Amino acid sequence: MGIQVRRRAEARWTGPVPTGVGHIRTASKALDSDYSLRSRESDDAPLNTNPEELIGAGLAGCFAMSVANLLEQDGYQDVQVNANSVVRLEETDAGYRITEIALSVTGTADALTDDDFARITDQAKRACPVSLALAGTTITLAQTKVVS
Amino acid sequence: MGIQVRRRAEARWTGPVPTGVGHIRTASKALDSDYSLRSRESDDAPLNTNPEELIGAGLAGCFAMSVANLLEQDGYQDVQVNANSVVRLEETDAGYRITEIALSVTGTADALTDDDFARITDQAKRACPVSLALAGTTITLAQTKVVS
Repeated sequence: MGIQVRRRAEARWTGPVPTGVGHIRTASKALDSDYSLRSRESDDAPLNTNPEELIGAGLAGCFAMSVANLLEQDGYQDVQVNANSVVRLEETDAGYRITEIALSVTGTADALTDDDFARITDQAKRACPVSLALAGTTITLAQTKVVS
Repeated sequence: MGIQVRRRAEARWTGPVPTGVGHIRTASKALDSDYSLRSRESDDAPLNTNPEELIGAGLAGCFAMSVANLLEQDGYQDVQVNANSVVRLEETDAGYRITEIALSVTGTADALTDDDFARITDQAKRACPVSLALAGTTITLAQTKVVS
């Protein structure tokens, strides 16, 4: 029997959606933030969290770890991986949808080539459990690049 | 053209997965936390964040707002909704998978019945964009309950 863990979070919403207030927090206490329709939909730089940036954060965290793991398995050393996610929320005819999550990934490792890094990041889409859970949206690799 | 927003987050991972360290942060700055294999897989109460609790937090936040919206559309007033999520990460023969996200949802509103609340929370699974994006895992409604 392999590892099995349960991770917890909770949210509260009070009032009508346009004027109401919410709060989201995680079991680790790393996140403990109000949220609102404004923090979710406004084009202003958000002062509070919103569900979409949290989905993007969970994916980026899982993806960076997954790419590092695959690089190590291929024998690469001195590994560092950065993953940036951009989650697009759109109002469609069917309602609100997360239509795309674009990932830009950069990596550093001894003797790593752009081709090999592109192959490994593509492999991570099928290894990272968060990426697999997000099968209802489109995850694109907007950029993969080796940096020194 | 309806609303279209982009939400950003980023993660960095350095070193081999077992001993390395990571960091995740969101554009809103509400989350800015280290993470590690230990914070992800250990059964101890996590001191740092992990991708799974962030996915659970995003879903809980979206789901609570979605249920509140559906209650308002049905004419309910003085609405409050709480959503708790438990994300299960398991090592399977195919690798790590998020095999289930269990939601427990409680609601308060004038004259709200358990039956009507169960109907509305079920409807929210098909309205909440985060729930729809997570089509690659199983989202269960572990409990729905009206509280006063």
